[in-house]
Amino acid sequence: MTAKKLLILPGDGIGQEVMVQVRRIIDWMGKKRNIAFDISEGLIGGSAYDVHGTPLPEQTLTAAMAADAVLLGAVGGPKWDDLPFDKKPERGLLGIRKEMGLFANLRPAVVFDALVEASTLKADVVQGLDIMIVRELTGGLYFGQPRGIETLANGERKGVNTLTYTTSEIQRIGRAAFDLARKRNKKLCSVDKANVLECTVLWREEMIKLQQEEYPDIELTHMYVDNAAMQLVRNPKQFDVMVTENMFGDILSDCAAMLTGSLGMLPSASLGAADANGNRKALYEPVHGSAPDIQGKDIANPLATILSFAMCLRYSFNMDAEADMIETAVKNVLKGGLRTADIMAPGKAKVSTTVMGESIIREL
Amino acid sequence: MTAKKLLILPGDGIGQEVMVQVRRIIDWMGKKRNIAFDISEGLIGGSAYDVHGTPLPEQTLTAAMAADAVLLGAVGGPKWDDLPFDKKPERGLLGIRKEMGLFANLRPAVVFDALVEASTLKADVVQGLDIMIVRELTGGLYFGQPRGIETLANGERKGVNTLTYTTSEIQRIGRAAFDLARKRNKKLCSVDKANVLECTVLWREEMIKLQQEEYPDIELTHMYVDNAAMQLVRNPKQFDVMVTENMFGDILSDCAAMLTGSLGMLPSASLGAADANGNRKALYEPVHGSAPDIQGKDIANPLATILSFAMCLRYSFNMDAEADMIETAVKNVLKGGLRTADIMAPGKAKVSTTVMGESIIREL
Ligand SMILES: CC(C)[C@H](C(=O)O)[C@@H](O)C(=O)O
Ligand SMILES: CC(C)[C@H](C(=O)O)[C@@H](O)C(=O)O
Repeated sequence: MTAKKLLILPGDGIGQEVMVQVRRIIDWMGKKRNIAFDISEGLIGGSAYDVHGTPLPEQTLTAAMAADAVLLGAVGGPKWDDLPFDKKPERGLLGIRKEMGLFANLRPAVVFDALVEASTLKADVVQGLDIMIVRELTGGLYFGQPRGIETLANGERKGVNTLTYTTSEIQRIGRAAFDLARKRNKKLCSVDKANVLECTVLWREEMIKLQQEEYPDIELTHMYVDNAAMQLVRNPKQFDVMVTENMFGDILSDCAAMLTGSLGMLPSASLGAADANGNRKALYEPVHGSAPDIQGKDIANPLATILSFAMCLRYSFNMDAEADMIETAVKNVLKGGLRTADIMAPGKAKVSTTVMGESIIREL
Repeated sequence: MTAKKLLILPGDGIGQEVMVQVRRIIDWMGKKRNIAFDISEGLIGGSAYDVHGTPLPEQTLTAAMAADAVLLGAVGGPKWDDLPFDKKPERGLLGIRKEMGLFANLRPAVVFDALVEASTLKADVVQGLDIMIVRELTGGLYFGQPRGIETLANGERKGVNTLTYTTSEIQRIGRAAFDLARKRNKKLCSVDKANVLECTVLWREEMIKLQQEEYPDIELTHMYVDNAAMQLVRNPKQFDVMVTENMFGDILSDCAAMLTGSLGMLPSASLGAADANGNRKALYEPVHGSAPDIQGKDIANPLATILSFAMCLRYSFNMDAEADMIETAVKNVLKGGLRTADIMAPGKAKVSTTVMGESIIREL
């Protein structure tokens, strides 16, 4: 077996320290499960800007394109808030998504049994919640042209961004979502604003066509984005797989993530198109941000990044057994009562980032 | 005192039957409080399409422009789902907002003490919640040009909508929000996506300028829209007045509304610019939709529309005393244990639309 090329981009803030724990798990996998990883590290975001003057250095991108998978921590922080728009840490993240063609962002919102009480929602509303939001990641308002701020003849300024999708862009994210629905409960809810936005009228038409022509076994429903935000709060368990465009997906997946009450637990995957050999470019990252306020204190929750690595094993390397092992270890450690500060609850044992990482290793 | 010209547009679905209850309150105000209303009715939405072939007939718009205030029920229903885009009931609503210049949409999310348990969120998270979301209503993605679906040279189709704001559009909604914040807790949170969208970079810049130049007494904060969706779920009571662009406002205000668990209780106001006499065009409507599934069953909750009328008294007619009377009557009736089906809870008395309306009158 050739070694899997894994590029690690810790990024900013707590990205560094949570990644240290993930590296221990990777080492463990190498030693105990005999899986050879070829690991390199790179810079992205603010820490890349500090060294190279750009949030996405050429060498990071080259390494990412050559890797079998990329594991990212988080980017951003107040230190870089006043940089011009195109130097901001976020541009590094958006740039790597776009350059690698990672159009499918998979964002699970899962409530762990041991953490039901962490939610601000009543236990019966969220217990057992298991939603997968498929967010389009390289189109829509985030990348549409024209964009920018111009000064008008009358001296006023005008800001413009463009929401645009072509049929092929809609079809490829649609297929990614339908494929996932087929592996789960064969239900897909497509979220749009087809009563107002023509761009999402096209979105809906293409989703309907796909279902009829390629996925007759999947039950497709449609929901307006405002109603989807409501329904996530009212009765999230009505959903299984949801698919939506980039900006709506950004908002809804964060809303769904917060329903679980434990952001520090949620991983994500961003996938590109499969090549002739069935390989696809992929980047895995936790849903939480760089949390600069708790950086370096050894209190951040490493589990979202550890679970992102599990997703990496599952989606990029077809190592379901190893992914299951990690996920089970996480569940057992939680059941055992260990908690980082963000998910601490009465009667549990508060542990540091490091101890949480060690406990997962021990459990493995 | 000259009679106040009030145009009533019941619209579709339950719009008709909730408006019947509001008319009783209007009659009561006329008789007992000696307030003269000059009332007319008109058609909008699907029911306008059925009669006139358009969701916004010329005579409705003319009457709206001549009215001191418009009270609207709700529009839409499956009956009109297959109409072409520009004939759909929603176009009537969007059209009247645009033509009347109603750029400021005020959407309170309030939890009534008697209804805390209706929320899917834990009582301590939502008890006493009182947020006002100020949504820009006549710009942004909803109205930006270019828009539409075109066929490309390669046979693909492409959908386009445009997010655009000018400085003056941002300033006028900003002022509306700052003014409201001044009447409340002097805190304003402006929601944008300034890390990704240049249009909202301009938004943020203008909000900052307004605060510095005209509202130094108001504390202005900024939040990205994805984080705002999270924070609404995590800790909604951190917010007082929020201001945001049209599409974000659509999503966030529905999310916030659902935090209360009782959509059937939430009114809204849509206001235009003040003229030389300080009068502004205004339209009041409940936040809930037309609920065609329960139409004609006398079970719909009329309170959101009744409270919309209270907002009308307050914002358009400066009748704070009368608005307070209605709001107090609503609170007392709820305290007395009466509930329509949507907010029914164990140990309470389930009543019809009609009985709820009668009870408010009795309480007044
Ligand atoms: C950091 C930001 C640019 C990014 C986004 O908006 O996509 C983040 O919110 C996310 O969801 O991954
Ligand atoms: C019906 C629809 C066009 C409308 C909107 O999106 O503005 C509604 O959702 C609202 O919030 O008033």
